[in-house]
Amino acid sequence: MRCGELAERLDERLAVEEYADVDASANGLQVGPADREVARVAVTVDAAVSTIEQAVDAQADLVIAHHGISWGGIDRVTGTAYRRLAPLIEDGLALYAAHLPLDGHQTLGNAAGLADLLELTDTEPFGELGPVHVGQRGTAPDAYSVDALHDLLAGELVHGGEGVQVLEFGPDRIEDIAIVTGSGVDWLEEAAESGADAFITGEGKQKAYHLAKEHGIHAFFAGHYATETFGVKALQDRLEEWGLKTTFIHEPTGL
Amino acid sequence: MRCGELAERLDERLAVEEYADVDASANGLQVGPADREVARVAVTVDAAVSTIEQAVDAQADLVIAHHGISWGGIDRVTGTAYRRLAPLIEDGLALYAAHLPLDGHQTLGNAAGLADLLELTDTEPFGELGPVHVGQRGTAPDAYSVDALHDLLAGELVHGGEGVQVLEFGPDRIEDIAIVTGSGVDWLEEAAESGADAFITGEGKQKAYHLAKEHGIHAFFAGHYATETFGVKALQDRLEEWGLKTTFIHEPTGL
Amino acid sequence: MRCGELAERLDERLAVEEYADVDASANGLQVGPADREVARVAVTVDAAVSTIEQAVDAQADLVIAHHGISWGGIDRVTGTAYRRLAPLIEDGLALYAAHLPLDGHQTLGNAAGLADLLELTDTEPFGELGPVHVGQRGTAPDAYSVDALHDLLAGELVHGGEGVQVLEFGPDRIEDIAIVTGSGVDWLEEAAESGADAFITGEGKQKAYHLAKEHGIHAFFAGHYATETFGVKALQDRLEEWGLKTTFIHEPTGL
Amino acid sequence: MRCGELAERLDERLAVEEYADVDASANGLQVGPADREVARVAVTVDAAVSTIEQAVDAQADLVIAHHGISWGGIDRVTGTAYRRLAPLIEDGLALYAAHLPLDGHQTLGNAAGLADLLELTDTEPFGELGPVHVGQRGTAPDAYSVDALHDLLAGELVHGGEGVQVLEFGPDRIEDIAIVTGSGVDWLEEAAESGADAFITGEGKQKAYHLAKEHGIHAFFAGHYATETFGVKALQDRLEEWGLKTTFIHEPTGL
Amino acid sequence: MRCGELAERLDERLAVEEYADVDASANGLQVGPADREVARVAVTVDAAVSTIEQAVDAQADLVIAHHGISWGGIDRVTGTAYRRLAPLIEDGLALYAAHLPLDGHQTLGNAAGLADLLELTDTEPFGELGPVHVGQRGTAPDAYSVDALHDLLAGELVHGGEGVQVLEFGPDRIEDIAIVTGSGVDWLEEAAESGADAFITGEGKQKAYHLAKEHGIHAFFAGHYATETFGVKALQDRLEEWGLKTTFIHEPTGL
Amino acid sequence: MRCGELAERLDERLAVEEYADVDASANGLQVGPADREVARVAVTVDAAVSTIEQAVDAQADLVIAHHGISWGGIDRVTGTAYRRLAPLIEDGLALYAAHLPLDGHQTLGNAAGLADLLELTDTEPFGELGPVHVGQRGTAPDAYSVDALHDLLAGELVHGGEGVQVLEFGPDRIEDIAIVTGSGVDWLEEAAESGADAFITGEGKQKAYHLAKEHGIHAFFAGHYATETFGVKALQDRLEEWGLKTTFIHEPTGL
Repeated sequence: MRCGELAERLDERLAVEEYADVDASANGLQVGPADREVARVAVTVDAAVSTIEQAVDAQADLVIAHHGISWGGIDRVTGTAYRRLAPLIEDGLALYAAHLPLDGHQTLGNAAGLADLLELTDTEPFGELGPVHVGQRGTAPDAYSVDALHDLLAGELVHGGEGVQVLEFGPDRIEDIAIVTGSGVDWLEEAAESGADAFITGEGKQKAYHLAKEHGIHAFFAGHYATETFGVKALQDRLEEWGLKTTFIHEPTGL
Repeated sequence: MRCGELAERLDERLAVEEYADVDASANGLQVGPADREVARVAVTVDAAVSTIEQAVDAQADLVIAHHGISWGGIDRVTGTAYRRLAPLIEDGLALYAAHLPLDGHQTLGNAAGLADLLELTDTEPFGELGPVHVGQRGTAPDAYSVDALHDLLAGELVHGGEGVQVLEFGPDRIEDIAIVTGSGVDWLEEAAESGADAFITGEGKQKAYHLAKEHGIHAFFAGHYATETFGVKALQDRLEEWGLKTTFIHEPTGL
Repeated sequence: MRCGELAERLDERLAVEEYADVDASANGLQVGPADREVARVAVTVDAAVSTIEQAVDAQADLVIAHHGISWGGIDRVTGTAYRRLAPLIEDGLALYAAHLPLDGHQTLGNAAGLADLLELTDTEPFGELGPVHVGQRGTAPDAYSVDALHDLLAGELVHGGEGVQVLEFGPDRIEDIAIVTGSGVDWLEEAAESGADAFITGEGKQKAYHLAKEHGIHAFFAGHYATETFGVKALQDRLEEWGLKTTFIHEPTGL
Repeated sequence: MRCGELAERLDERLAVEEYADVDASANGLQVGPADREVARVAVTVDAAVSTIEQAVDAQADLVIAHHGISWGGIDRVTGTAYRRLAPLIEDGLALYAAHLPLDGHQTLGNAAGLADLLELTDTEPFGELGPVHVGQRGTAPDAYSVDALHDLLAGELVHGGEGVQVLEFGPDRIEDIAIVTGSGVDWLEEAAESGADAFITGEGKQKAYHLAKEHGIHAFFAGHYATETFGVKALQDRLEEWGLKTTFIHEPTGL
Repeated sequence: MRCGELAERLDERLAVEEYADVDASANGLQVGPADREVARVAVTVDAAVSTIEQAVDAQADLVIAHHGISWGGIDRVTGTAYRRLAPLIEDGLALYAAHLPLDGHQTLGNAAGLADLLELTDTEPFGELGPVHVGQRGTAPDAYSVDALHDLLAGELVHGGEGVQVLEFGPDRIEDIAIVTGSGVDWLEEAAESGADAFITGEGKQKAYHLAKEHGIHAFFAGHYATETFGVKALQDRLEEWGLKTTFIHEPTGL
Repeated sequence: MRCGELAERLDERLAVEEYADVDASANGLQVGPADREVARVAVTVDAAVSTIEQAVDAQADLVIAHHGISWGGIDRVTGTAYRRLAPLIEDGLALYAAHLPLDGHQTLGNAAGLADLLELTDTEPFGELGPVHVGQRGTAPDAYSVDALHDLLAGELVHGGEGVQVLEFGPDRIEDIAIVTGSGVDWLEEAAESGADAFITGEGKQKAYHLAKEHGIHAFFAGHYATETFGVKALQDRLEEWGLKTTFIHEPTGL
């Protein structure tokens, strides 16, 4: 498949245009000519020197990453920008990025993937950001205890570093769960005000402690990387259905 | 001392006005009439319901916090804003906030305090933010190993939660150290480009991993709370010199 | 009724959300927890120390004001902001504000109330402000003379200060009348260009004189306070229908 | 004198450039070619059809007005803009505008003129607006009573309409007086916080009532027009010194 | 016909309102009272002193120009602005401007007129600018050679100066042609990416050279003036149908 | 010399930082790691595929261009951005850009070079752009006639396309000449108002015609490329003095 054709198909599937005004990431094809032929795709969370080198080793023609390399425009191709672009160009790889579109997609996205893992039902969009949503909420058929939810997250997610951190300020029985993966603390209050028992995100931030305490909600910090492998893996399945070979490049950050 | 007089003295000592254009925090007197008489001051990292209640119990007249309650204006005094304001007003406490001015002050600030703990010399302002700096850098008289620096931070700082996390991508001998306390990952590249061996901040962020790796610099995440007790404690000393009684309200967040 | 439930009902009735982008006032519940129980409501034009104290004396649980206390965010709870918030919080009153939504509502609003007093017919929205209107225009079944209209306004409106001022530059017979209550001079030209014989607002402004003269339209300045008691009084009726007790707090400003 | 030369001299004398960033008025020469010869100048508060026609009758070559006709750019020369421009162009008059520069000038300005009338001493700039001031404050050698100050203003200023309105919330003896002429209510709080006993401006605004009451300061509304004849009259004297004939066009607005 | 009525009819016909947010030109009636009676209309590309004087000589009541005299507001009626406004006002002419609405209109516009000249078929809007288009593209029934297209443009358009300049980087056979008249180089890449063989605009810009070369597309610079006489001439026909007399004022700029 | 060291030396020499707020071009090192060793430098007007390829052929290590490849940030490295970056990265060339700093420098800049060619004396900065200037003006010791100035420009500048175009609206004797190279029409009025007899720039624009005519000034359009080879050639001399080999890559655009 031509790179440009594949990019257009992904743009459409992920509704990339709807996120254009609220995402600093230049989603879609970020690097490479549209007429490049693509047979093998490497998917990964972060486009960076080491993951790109692994994609080269895997003989990929295209890297699809949740975190690409253009955020608000590349002012100078020096330093880190140069180090990341050079291997892509020298080894002939293209790069496709899908940031918020892959957080908020209600079946393929990161939050949707985590909700599946927790077997939530009655799921609905959560995490308002202008006209779109970047997360998902749902109900646990059987209520979790704090320990059970902690252990499930700690056991199933690959963190590569710290474990799962909990601010234990909510009720004993956790049924209603709101999720924004990655760096989602800004939606903790929306979760509390909408009645969730627990809010799950990736990274913690200082202000979360008192907000969670004062709202009486549990906050789980399960790792930015660990909560954001779902989306690119879900894309992997679609790509294979479209006749492409795929490789998942795994480099957990521990963050 | 009158509350207004004390606030003016602190404003001047911390050069609050220089930070006005770059800090979302409304630094200075945030709550309370200027003519209130102040005898006892509670200092704390976060102004929140529980720390304010502890200040009430300590019979303080004024709370000085690194993180206040007004960030870009309080649109509605409902929810959390109400819960935090109500005890201040009902129990007659005033609130003074010093955010970035207390991060960047080169002798009283959080980074300066952490640099003291590490016994850095030849310290200078670090962490550009418009016209001001929010951190400090310096040289360790005897080079640290990664383990030694980790253990010093882990042993001396009170985290209340996770320990100190290290991205170990720098040299064996750590001499040149750059510090921005709290949420300082945005200055990791400035640290690397200026030749630092290690960068210390409070919270980790996902993007730090590959930036540290590609720049060949160590990144230490020693906790937002844990790295930001220095400033308010340094103020405590000054306040006592000015004849005021003080109390440090300690509520570590583990973040 | 719970305060939050009442606020939502009012938000909906007054279409508060439609005005969000054009009104500096934080319309809706401005102060107080949503779970407070409300039995008695005090309505008033201005939320300020003296009207709040009168509401306390009247044993109200909630104050509904046309002019609230949050305009573009409260940066510091000091000075006037403190003096107004303190009695609300100390005496357990909530505050609900409805500014432009209560100017522009076509049956409950201030302009609509004044149009009723003048017995205008064929009324329609007037006073464009982005996507909404903040006034009303209509036709007098029997034409007014300048003196008759002046006397009606002077006799029926409670000013508390100066009387009604007229810039007498329009035709002898006044049939088509445009109204924007309060501070509405900016719509004088819209009134003239749409063919109105007279424009009625609350406060005069210097530039109105020559605009009215050059457009050949009468301008009536009937007082900011005096033209803006209609809206909160109309709400009073609705609140009583909903089973709440109400009190109108009257403090004319003479402006 | 050539029009351009006169304009430059006025620009310099009034420090027009210092006000450029904070004034919507296009101060300086607003209409007319710079090479026009000027023998007679008409000065007036408002540039409008009737005052321009009076200037034509007075055989003036140039109109100097406090309120000109270009505020943020003339988008279309239709309606009022056409009616005002046409007589200027048809009858060969130029127009020079001096808005905030003529409010804030500490000897020629409107506030300075009113301070002179009140015989204030120890005058200093008042009314901060970015880098400049738009008013003046000073001390009355013998304290005024409210009635005495009211009567002096009512007797000496030509209003053409309503008299002088007072919000009587300050002390019995009025010594420290702050002045911003015209539409200056936004500086009422600065006046109160700086310890003034009374604040004098031209137009009243609704919010002034409770602010004055809560701050315990008198507010005098002496008329927009009436407080702003001082500046252009002071210019008249300078122009005569420069050998030009002058006429004061008086059209009080009553506002 | 009254000037205001004619202006409204043109506004509607040219969909002036749709262009309001993207055009610096104040499109519509720019100068003159709406109640002026119009019998003869002069149409021209540029409203300027010499074309206005020719319109006066032609005894026109209204000038319709592609380039008017108000772009983002007239700050001062001095210098050039004065020289252009004065003859309009002194000789009683009104001015109507239609900039982008007359570039992008798909039957009356400049690009549409040029497409007609080239006998393009299957025309469609081209040249995105926010919600509107400012050009047109279409297919030549018989492919042009570079020389044939050059000679046609050079022969049919009246330039008044330089001839037609070609950057000859496209294919031998030119079938698919995109047009944005005037200053349209910013759409050269859109033309190339949409598969056009040649892009025609008025003025050249330095950056066009390498963009055309790298995209393999021909760029024709046929003159700003020369490509923009189509629109006002098309309006001339409509005006005559509406019973008005018209004159085309021709002043080629050679640019 | 290391690339980073050379870039810093040029940044300082050209006062690059002073232009940072007004220039869309990311001036300074745009592409390449700072530690690259530089022996040979290719200088050129435009960084583009063909000039970069010529620099590769010339075995340059660094390209210095007046027009670089990053203008307001590279959003996507696709299309033209890819085609230009790829040969730089694949062949190991760095890229340094100097746009407005090389227009406005008063001895090395483009305008200064053109002023030298015309043997102007008493030169001074011309062409205000915020805090900097982008051109130069001066006096011809012996007045030029229009023909003489035209012939000098046409004879000495290498255009590669159209010749020199003149709008002949100024005086017979041309003594005072203002220059902004490249695309400088926006400063034509500043030239006229400051008394220049002729204004020289590179590209013409439609609006220049009537402005020049109404101001009575000659406008010479001598080609964007042709007027902008001076700056990079002047740098060539400095680089040779610093011990570097240099090559001038000449690709006239005819624009």
